This record gives sequence, structure tokens and C-alpha cells, in this order.
Amino acid sequence: MIWPDSRHYPIELRLPVLWGHMDAMGHVNNTVYFRFFESARVEYMAQMGLFARQGEDEVVPILASTRCDYKVPLVYPDEVVVGARTVKVGRTSFTQEYAIWSTAKNALAAQGEGIIVCIETKSGKPIAVPDDVRAAIERVDKSALTVALDRA
Amino acid sequence: MIWPDSRHYPIELRLPVLWGHMDAMGHVNNTVYFRFFESARVEYMAQMGLFARQGEDEVVPILASTRCDYKVPLVYPDEVVVGARTVKVGRTSFTQEYAIWSTAKNALAAQGEGIIVCIETKSGKPIAVPDDVRAAIERVDKSALTVALDRA
Amino acid sequence: MIWPDSRHYPIELRLPVLWGHMDAMGHVNNTVYFRFFESARVEYMAQMGLFARQGEDEVVPILASTRCDYKVPLVYPDEVVVGARTVKVGRTSFTQEYAIWSTAKNALAAQGEGIIVCIETKSGKPIAVPDDVRAAIERVDKSALTVALDRA
Amino acid sequence: MIWPDSRHYPIELRLPVLWGHMDAMGHVNNTVYFRFFESARVEYMAQMGLFARQGEDEVVPILASTRCDYKVPLVYPDEVVVGARTVKVGRTSFTQEYAIWSTAKNALAAQGEGIIVCIETKSGKPIAVPDDVRAAIERVDKSALTVALDRA
Repeated sequence: MIWPDSRHYPIELRLPVLWGHMDAMGHVNNTVYFRFFESARVEYMAQMGLFARQGEDEVVPILASTRCDYKVPLVYPDEVVVGARTVKVGRTSFTQEYAIWSTAKNALAAQGEGIIVCIETKSGKPIAVPDDVRAAIERVDKSALTVALDRA
Repeated sequence: MIWPDSRHYPIELRLPVLWGHMDAMGHVNNTVYFRFFESARVEYMAQMGLFARQGEDEVVPILASTRCDYKVPLVYPDEVVVGARTVKVGRTSFTQEYAIWSTAKNALAAQGEGIIVCIETKSGKPIAVPDDVRAAIERVDKSALTVALDRA
Repeated sequence: MIWPDSRHYPIELRLPVLWGHMDAMGHVNNTVYFRFFESARVEYMAQMGLFARQGEDEVVPILASTRCDYKVPLVYPDEVVVGARTVKVGRTSFTQEYAIWSTAKNALAAQGEGIIVCIETKSGKPIAVPDDVRAAIERVDKSALTVALDRA
Repeated sequence: MIWPDSRHYPIELRLPVLWGHMDAMGHVNNTVYFRFFESARVEYMAQMGLFARQGEDEVVPILASTRCDYKVPLVYPDEVVVGARTVKVGRTSFTQEYAIWSTAKNALAAQGEGIIVCIETKSGKPIAVPDDVRAAIERVDKSALTVALDRA
């Protein structure tokens, strides 16, 4: 697996392509790619320790926007690697990039993006990304960097 | 729409068949029928007033078993009518029958069953079907009967 | 239903929000919005007469990219209106805009986009949008305009 | 993993439980279990070599009925093992048993069944299970038996 531009994803999830993921065109349906992105995003948040905070918490991350660019059609059988990394941290939101690698085709199958907004539970309004959330993002993406350097 | 054996369903839900419901065989995927059954079951429970009770409640209805017999393949475009009725109330559970009518094919597309067990929230164990749940089932299925008689 | 900027969609699909569309957050899952978009896109293509052409055809429309901006969370029960219109026709692709209206909340729930590329079946490469496809898009979107004027 | 009654499944598929598999109750939705069964069934058919036959073939296997008994609720994160075996070969159909093992809970999460009918493509009617299909079933389930004995 060689991600384009020697980029690195701190989260890499191996997921099976199932026969039932295909639609009447005989390709994995366009909605399934977003389930793959979601799974990597949730894993990223788990690594951030965001779930441990939940419940007691006054800030909740909400998916505000997401996109997928389809490169190569996926078909069963295959196993994909779904990568996730944070590419930007703004005032009230952060932006993640997702990528799907087809091991059967040895090719980048899709690339996407997700914008996650920090919402204050009480008001339902966007709120500045809390310091500990910023720190958690840096930790997850940095540890990835470390791993990447170790591999070099 | 003529249900077999002039049977009657107190809940009849009209749902569109979507293109995305089809799998690589070009038919509505087998799992989608259970989504249709679920939708009728939830509507039945809403009519019972079960959701109003929830939260404050010590008894929760859980799907313990479900089955689908596929009669005629569904394809897009179509609109189905999903029927639900309770066919048996036991000590700790009740049994529902579901049916899916294809308006495009004017035929019974599938028939199924669901067994719903009353679980005590605290212990997680089956508990006798509460009297008000029995009464609610009778009311939903009876009002259906009334409607059926009105129509005759 | 009042679409923003008094825009008009030639395709407006009424779809039920199902209980099973909700995820563990208690909101309609982010992937379901793309199923809604897909359903409007397929209806748009059906109106274009694209399916009649299929099989005998040397050109096939492929979804190359799609995006969704989430505005207001959807919850069951609700019924959405999904709008689709073509906003741009390029050399080898055309761009559609999608919108989801929540009738329960009387609000724009989401807005999105889809880029559809014309692929030559034989080579698998992008090909110039055929004249009859251009004409079909104009017809679908124009007839909508007519309807809109009639309503005024 | 200890299947009940020391039974053995020739097909054992490891599948991740995804966050998006959960519904508003916070458990894996009832329809997802049928996607798991389907995935094991398709893998079983692949082992039978049924897909190689397809296209040129006058007999196609169709799912006529399926059932699931839910034992223990699944939640994310988890990894399940989905087992499939043929328990009966009739005149025009064969019956498979499915089981889902939760590795997180170290427990049998669900058990189910599928009845697969052999349909003659031309007439659309059930046809006697062809000899090579019977042989393929025996081969898949027997090789399993062999493996089971080797492990003993």
C-alpha cells in the first residue's frame, strides 16, 4: 500500500468489502464509502479519548460536512484500508481527510473529507475547539508522524 | 391490494422501493425486507403508545427472533405496503406477523414474523407482559378490526 | 416548503424517515442522506430517459464525486422532500445540486452536490457529454422551470 | 470461541462490528445480522465454486427464507465470527445454519437459518438440486469435518 505523495494516516482501518455492499451496477454503492469514512473517523475519535469524555461533557463533535471523490470502483471480494488524518484545526471546527485503499486493485479507490464542528451541548451552537481536544488531535496525528519516522 | 385469506393488518405502511435497495442480483436485497418489517413494527409500537412510556419505564420490548419468507422478488421502481398484526400474546412475549405487498406486481412479495420479548430493564431478564401492554395490543388490533368492519 | 433563494427543483421526491435510519446518536445517520440524494439522482436520470438507453449504450453516467452539508439533524418520525437539479453541464461531466427538506421541522436539513461523469463503456474513459444527454438535461430542468412559472 | 454442542462450521468469517451498525437503541440493528449471515452464505457459495458456474448456468440459488434468533446484543467495538454450514439437502433446496460469535463478549450472539432453493433460470421454477451442487456442498462441509478432526 503506497498512499499518494507519501502521505501518512495515523488511523488505518482494515475493512472487508462485502458482497452486500454492491448495488445493481455491480460496484460498491456510493453510500458505503461514507460508512468506511465514518468508521475511520470514529476510530480516530476513540484514539483521541473523546468517548471517555462523553456524557459528562459540554462539548460534542458533530459532522457538519463530508465529501467523497470516487477514483476506482470497488467490487467484492476485496479488503480496503481506510485512512484518516486531521489536516486543519480551525476556531470551532477541524477538517479530516479520508482515503480508501483497495488491496485487490492495489490502488487508491477514493479520497474524501469531513468537517467536524464542536457544538456546545447546552446552546446547540458552535464553540471554540477546547484545548484538550486540540491537544488530543495533535497527539493522535503526531504519534502517527512518529511511527512514520520510525518506519523511514 | 388483497391480502391472502382476507386477513387484516391494523398497521399498513406505504414505503417506496429505492434503487439503492437493490443488490448485485438486481433485486431488493434480503436485508431490506427486515428494515421494512422493523418500520411497521415501530409504527405498531408507536400506536400502542410504547414510546411515550419509554425512559420512565422498567419494561422494554426486545426483538428476540424474526423471519422472512420471500415470495416474489422486489425491484425498483415499486411501492410496497407493509402490514403488521399481533397473532399471539404469550406469557413474556408476543408474536407479530408481517407482510409486504408489491403494488407494482400486485402480489404478496414476502411474509414474516417477529417475536418480541418484554425485558425488565433492571435485571435484563424476561418479565410477564404487563397488563397495559396487553391492553394496548388489543386496542391496536381491535381498532383495526373495527376499521375492517367499517370497510365491509 | 420554501427552498432558500426561491430556487426550484425539477425533481422532488417525498421519502419517509425510518426509525432504522437513526444511529446511536439518535439522529439520521450521515450515510442515509447520500441514499436520499441517490434516490433523487436516479429519479432525475429516469426522467431523462437514461435507463431506456442503457444496455444498447456506449456511454454510462458515473458518480465521480458527492458532498453533503448537514444543516439540521433529522429524526424519526419525519418525511423529507429531496430536491435535485442540474446546475452546470461541462465538457465530460455535469453537476447536480441536492437538497433535503424536513417537513417535521419545516427547515432545510441538508444540501449537497454530485458530479456525474460520462464514461465510454469500451475504454472506461471520460467522454464528451453526448448531445442527447445535454438535451435531456435541458428538457428535465426546463420542464421544471415551466412548472415553476405555472405555479407563480 | 466455543460453538455450542461442539458443532463445527466449515465457513468462519471474521467481521468487524462498526459504530454505524448500531441503531438508536445503542445496539447493532437487527438487519445487520442478516448482512452478516449473507456474507457467510456468499463465502460458502464461493467455496462451492458456484460463482464460477454463474452466467453460463441454467440453475441459480435463491434465498427463499431466513431467520435469526437474537441471543446477546452486539455493540461496537467488537469483532464477530460468522459461521455457516449446511444442515440439510432436500429435493429442490438446501438448508443452512448460521451463527454469530461475539469475541468481545465471548458468547454466541445469534443463530439463524437460511433456505436456499435451486431455481431454473428459464422457467423461474424450483428444480432438483443438481448433482454437482450436492457434491460441492458435501465437499465444503466435509473438508470442514476433516479440519475439525485434525484439530481434535
